[in-house]
Amino acid sequence: MTIKVPHRLYLTEDQIPQQWYNLRADMKEQAAPMINPATGKPAVVEDLYPVFCKELAQQEMDNETRYFDIPEEVRDIYKIYRPAPLCRAYNLEKALDTPAKIYYKFEGNNTSGSHKLNSAVAQAYYAKKEGLKGVTTETGAGQWGTALSEACSYFGLDLQVYMVKVSYNQKPFRKDIMKTFGAQVFASPSDRTEAGRKILAEDPDNSGSLGCAISEAVEVAVTNEGYRYVLGSVLNQVLLHQSIIGLESKIAMEQLDEYPDIVIGCAGGGSNLGGLIAPFMQDKLTGKADPRIIAVEPASCPSLTRGVYKYDFCDTGKITPMAKMYTLGCTFKPSANHAGGLRYHGMSPILSKLYADKYMEAESYEQTKVFEAAVQFAKLETILPAPESAHAIRGAIDEALKCKETGETKTILFGLTGTGYFDMTAYAAYNEGRMSDSVPTDEELQPSIDALPTIPGIQE
Amino acid sequence: MTIKVPHRLYLTEDQIPQQWYNLRADMKEQAAPMINPATGKPAVVEDLYPVFCKELAQQEMDNETRYFDIPEEVRDIYKIYRPAPLCRAYNLEKALDTPAKIYYKFEGNNTSGSHKLNSAVAQAYYAKKEGLKGVTTETGAGQWGTALSEACSYFGLDLQVYMVKVSYNQKPFRKDIMKTFGAQVFASPSDRTEAGRKILAEDPDNSGSLGCAISEAVEVAVTNEGYRYVLGSVLNQVLLHQSIIGLESKIAMEQLDEYPDIVIGCAGGGSNLGGLIAPFMQDKLTGKADPRIIAVEPASCPSLTRGVYKYDFCDTGKITPMAKMYTLGCTFKPSANHAGGLRYHGMSPILSKLYADKYMEAESYEQTKVFEAAVQFAKLETILPAPESAHAIRGAIDEALKCKETGETKTILFGLTGTGYFDMTAYAAYNEGRMSDSVPTDEELQPSIDALPTIPGIQE
Repeated sequence: MTIKVPHRLYLTEDQIPQQWYNLRADMKEQAAPMINPATGKPAVVEDLYPVFCKELAQQEMDNETRYFDIPEEVRDIYKIYRPAPLCRAYNLEKALDTPAKIYYKFEGNNTSGSHKLNSAVAQAYYAKKEGLKGVTTETGAGQWGTALSEACSYFGLDLQVYMVKVSYNQKPFRKDIMKTFGAQVFASPSDRTEAGRKILAEDPDNSGSLGCAISEAVEVAVTNEGYRYVLGSVLNQVLLHQSIIGLESKIAMEQLDEYPDIVIGCAGGGSNLGGLIAPFMQDKLTGKADPRIIAVEPASCPSLTRGVYKYDFCDTGKITPMAKMYTLGCTFKPSANHAGGLRYHGMSPILSKLYADKYMEAESYEQTKVFEAAVQFAKLETILPAPESAHAIRGAIDEALKCKETGETKTILFGLTGTGYFDMTAYAAYNEGRMSDSVPTDEELQPSIDALPTIPGIQE
Repeated sequence: MTIKVPHRLYLTEDQIPQQWYNLRADMKEQAAPMINPATGKPAVVEDLYPVFCKELAQQEMDNETRYFDIPEEVRDIYKIYRPAPLCRAYNLEKALDTPAKIYYKFEGNNTSGSHKLNSAVAQAYYAKKEGLKGVTTETGAGQWGTALSEACSYFGLDLQVYMVKVSYNQKPFRKDIMKTFGAQVFASPSDRTEAGRKILAEDPDNSGSLGCAISEAVEVAVTNEGYRYVLGSVLNQVLLHQSIIGLESKIAMEQLDEYPDIVIGCAGGGSNLGGLIAPFMQDKLTGKADPRIIAVEPASCPSLTRGVYKYDFCDTGKITPMAKMYTLGCTFKPSANHAGGLRYHGMSPILSKLYADKYMEAESYEQTKVFEAAVQFAKLETILPAPESAHAIRGAIDEALKCKETGETKTILFGLTGTGYFDMTAYAAYNEGRMSDSVPTDEELQPSIDALPTIPGIQE
């Protein structure tokens, strides 16, 4: 019997997974441990307590526990906006005239507009449970800040968001939506922190960077009683929470008697990609299946495809622990790129390790090619994608076109992480032919890579 | 057995209704017929052919046919973004500490961000089927223009949108999203039409009005070969298409063994309200049930609560047929009100008749009270509502609070028509205490009511 595949498949509330899946438990080799820059030694969980709340610090360090129960309070919020639909892109398939079957998991059906809410809710819950007054964070494009504002509003936590100044000015509506949910939003660099004041003293017109905003948010968290810092990507805990994306996708595909030959996600810090691929990578690691797994990143910030696999700081202020990851160097400044959420210099250590061990492929695309795919998709599937998500669309379209050439009926699954309502400036630039591609030359990449920190005995 | 009510109930694709329901077929008395201003006589269907494409003109005039088959091509698009979920507002109920059960039908899960797509798809389909080159329309807040851009892009139709100049300038992103879908967007008044040039000659700084934009769009449609005009509200055909909202809501509620005691919708031209209430009004008209049905409108543009029930033009340019409806007069200029979609001087003739015959109640709210409800809702239910939709939220909250006083366990259903991503200017004004209420005095309402047209023998 053939199963009829609907355009959008929603699981029922009861089918929302009750546990997150920890990919590390199935990895044959673990990612290299974080290094405490003060000691030059592997960080222990206590090193993280001043920055993260305890349960999150424990999740961060736990390479053993395969499944973590999703707390009831977190599930209660998931139920308001989840399950997210698994969609069959019938119209896109038809327009491409491809024999491939294209599925996408759409995570944009909530006010924050992206998958970021999955981890924001979890992090806010643990902070509240620990009795904290509030949390601090940074945001670039604003999706994470918006998601965390919602989550903190729900749990009654204070929230201070340090928003990269150029985004703060270019995207005033992002600030307004965070304020609607009760967050305080500051343009970074600000005069509220040592880190910010130092930068402003040197350069009063500094327009900020994600690394600088991280430094400010961490400083406020560690110097204020009852506050901790939270982060929306890169971290192991974030990938754990985001595994809900992949777990739901897999249940929905099983219901349709489908399994992906190719899984594609956009990659900035790795939060969406790590979550989407989790159960499929599990199958790969345990020998149950062998799907191709592809990370798609912007050519303007190509950490996997052109970076080096070395220890680096997670922030430009160099106050965080160091992680071994694919990186362009924490002092790398990506040129103007509207896909703001993918402008991070590094990459999740878990994903970096899987990429180094050849469990995963990576490719990069120039911005105009990404927006071409975004507009094509919007017209056919009635969803205006976030520029970040459009990287995955581009990758999926190109794989589907390869199937057209070879005649192969492959099943493709990609992650549609969010909507582009707050990215209309970029769409307007594309529509009006004002969008340019900015791919750094090798010479432009070298200085920040050369400036990577050395750690005696580990990385010299 | 108690049925467990999920936070969001999605029907399956197969459960999407196959027919629209025409409320007129069950009305004991019909709304007064449209009048052709050229003859002063009731309009016949041929009078509409120069303006509307034929099948839509026929739907407009058909008071008999109870159900219309939804064309397969329209259903194919509905399947991409429908069924829309029926949501149980558990968190809102808890925060209000009310014994009432609050349900809402959420229509914002598509790129256009509102229910407008339901009729846009239908109207674009019939235009394409008739072999037209394109259509013209006006848009105020921009939801209709966005929805129609999507629909026309899908069917490969040209689209010219005349957008009220003040909105065009205040909401540049709305223009950009329409352009992304390939529409041409002009600020109205423009120099492209007689109507526009006349207004600009008298007042070069004229910032436009919905009525003026309608005049321009109609003029372009009737003077260009292969073009017709389409409208997103007020019309009988629009209420017919929007009945999908109510039909799905009713199926979903039946599945939960629920029936609403109160149905609440926001009311501008009536497209959402007429669609949401359709099957429940049917029950009322046929004596099967007796739910209360409440229209909520802005105090700044109170056509039902403070208007008169008389014949009026649908546009300020006075080129459309005249309809008998609750109206503030087609020359009424609502003061600045961010809930742009509810700023229309009149009201659907069908809804006007039902209100006159006491099948429906109406109430009005001031803007700050509406935004108070919007923000409360956003924080509890993770959806940022459109200002228009927030009128219905306000109404639902107040009914739920009455239940708290009386201890009654009423079941409330309201329509959440869309999202507020493009209304952040209004949210920012509310957050920062800059929002004011603007309720016209009786003296301010009188001139446009006094200026209503007289029709010999009918309305003198």
